[in-house]
Amino acid sequence: MSFFRFNVDGMAGYQPGEQPRGLTGVLKLNTNENPYPASPRVFEAVRQTTPDALRKYPDPMATVFRERAATLLGVPSDWILAGNGSDDLLTIAVRSFVSPDDLVVAPTPSYTLYRSLAQIQDAQYREIPFTAEWGLPDAFADPSARLAFLPNPNSPSGTVIEPSRVRALARRLRCPLVVDEAYVDFAAQDCVSLVRELKNVIVTRSLSKSYSLAGIRFGYAVAWPEVIRGMIKVKDSYNCDAVSIAAATAAIDDQTHFRENIRRVCATRARLGEALRGLGFHVPDSQANFVWCSDGPAPPRRLYEQLKERDILVRYMNYPGHGEGLRISVGSDAEIDRLLSELRELIR
Amino acid sequence: MSFFRFNVDGMAGYQPGEQPRGLTGVLKLNTNENPYPASPRVFEAVRQTTPDALRKYPDPMATVFRERAATLLGVPSDWILAGNGSDDLLTIAVRSFVSPDDLVVAPTPSYTLYRSLAQIQDAQYREIPFTAEWGLPDAFADPSARLAFLPNPNSPSGTVIEPSRVRALARRLRCPLVVDEAYVDFAAQDCVSLVRELKNVIVTRSLSKSYSLAGIRFGYAVAWPEVIRGMIKVKDSYNCDAVSIAAATAAIDDQTHFRENIRRVCATRARLGEALRGLGFHVPDSQANFVWCSDGPAPPRRLYEQLKERDILVRYMNYPGHGEGLRISVGSDAEIDRLLSELRELIR
Repeated sequence: MSFFRFNVDGMAGYQPGEQPRGLTGVLKLNTNENPYPASPRVFEAVRQTTPDALRKYPDPMATVFRERAATLLGVPSDWILAGNGSDDLLTIAVRSFVSPDDLVVAPTPSYTLYRSLAQIQDAQYREIPFTAEWGLPDAFADPSARLAFLPNPNSPSGTVIEPSRVRALARRLRCPLVVDEAYVDFAAQDCVSLVRELKNVIVTRSLSKSYSLAGIRFGYAVAWPEVIRGMIKVKDSYNCDAVSIAAATAAIDDQTHFRENIRRVCATRARLGEALRGLGFHVPDSQANFVWCSDGPAPPRRLYEQLKERDILVRYMNYPGHGEGLRISVGSDAEIDRLLSELRELIR
Repeated sequence: MSFFRFNVDGMAGYQPGEQPRGLTGVLKLNTNENPYPASPRVFEAVRQTTPDALRKYPDPMATVFRERAATLLGVPSDWILAGNGSDDLLTIAVRSFVSPDDLVVAPTPSYTLYRSLAQIQDAQYREIPFTAEWGLPDAFADPSARLAFLPNPNSPSGTVIEPSRVRALARRLRCPLVVDEAYVDFAAQDCVSLVRELKNVIVTRSLSKSYSLAGIRFGYAVAWPEVIRGMIKVKDSYNCDAVSIAAATAAIDDQTHFRENIRRVCATRARLGEALRGLGFHVPDSQANFVWCSDGPAPPRRLYEQLKERDILVRYMNYPGHGEGLRISVGSDAEIDRLLSELRELIR
């Protein structure tokens, strides 16, 4: 006999990308980590950890981060909520707005965690296929939805829905729209300004990719203060730890480092996309720190396995009914050279 | 119009203890923090944080911690689940086992987070009063419960239910029993051996108090592997960050520091309890790092406020129908001397 809820027993659980331990020489291009180190200020902040910072509970609201992030974004600080990675904020959103049997909508192919979160909540989950060119489908604005997720830029495609279209979607929905901007720092536009306009827009962000801080688990949400206040009731009291709060604050304080990091990743991304197209893959224009390549000269699953044999991890993804492909994170120039050289050999 | 679920809108939300920021000279005896610093090995581990540790995702299972904790407890490592504080594990338990309208039971007066977690899940919550001498009430073994919480030692009383009685309770329940051992390292006995015997016992632990690590948010659960496997589906993929995993592992590796820390806290606890009894309070024998004093020579609410004016924070607690009192964390000897001296003045 199982004590678990029926919906939990019946679900598979989200599978994060492979994280090989203790292996050297493995090139990880599978989980969209940043190839470059975080700002030196982050390490300075971590090194300055005091006994008091560890033995005392952290600030439940991560106030110091909240205030700096608010200044950066031009909103008051009570429009910001810090989370233990942006996954924490997605979880909080589902627990805040979705009761069992309520409908959660998200596009597909996209981030599969949304489905897992809906399953844990025993909610209905409807995936709405993107249009052929990764555009927003009309059916997305489902008036019966209780929560909608729009990853923007999207994974695995790296494509973006224009803010004006997101605004139109939010206006048609009768529920909160979580615009998951985990990758937005690599894109040309973002939707924070929509939050000011529309009370049902919640933007979530992550420091994992653009600030090279996947290891510390830090993200934040931007929403109206009354929305933030409700989400605070649902979050764990001390969801962010003292070292992470200090590290995240130091990271956003170094915008020079941040911009240079983004510039380098975007330059390599352009080169990677071109090279993959040259090899015969279909690669949509990416505004994230990865590219999606499909319909290439060799079956993607085989390429994934062959690359793995050669110590290169990329993410093979298969969306039944929508095709399959490889999502390749933008590494350093040297790493991408290594990948391309192996790929050329495998395809030849 | 609110987008929030009815149960979330209607709840107050858990209130963590006051955490004054940027104030010096405030004596915090209100959130059961340890007065002594964590092991030097913890700071060594934190200082050794590498750029790679921050830019990459952490190990989703905190394997290095899991293996060391398993060795310490004498169980296989798949009996251990790490969490972002033991609150994270309590949250995971509720989401794993409790559907809306299901019944959650816990004793009272006790940790009020259980109620908040049940409310967020839209569950029924039944508080069962402890017997007069903080014993386990018969009514606790409610066969209709879907989840039972037993904090052991209990807060605010610091009292303990004998493992043999916990075993009897677990056998009568038809649901998981979470034995919340956040304070157990200050007690004479624990319930880990019951986990081996009984598949419905889940022990949760925290490094916040006994390892002086409230700031890093780290706890763990001990349960049967099939229970752990189900809970893994519900937890956030990367619930523990890389620095916290390293710090927590270094902490449990230094059992000498740990034991000396516990010894000092317990010695001061004995002295504090005696002194408070000498002042006329009722103070049950505590096996935690705090004492509960009630029925004293002055109203506890007034004493709380007067102490606060003198920069000493203790926790005033009022359980309607069960009385009120002050929960005072065991500080250093000097801190407790300061508290007692102020208390003597206020009572005189």
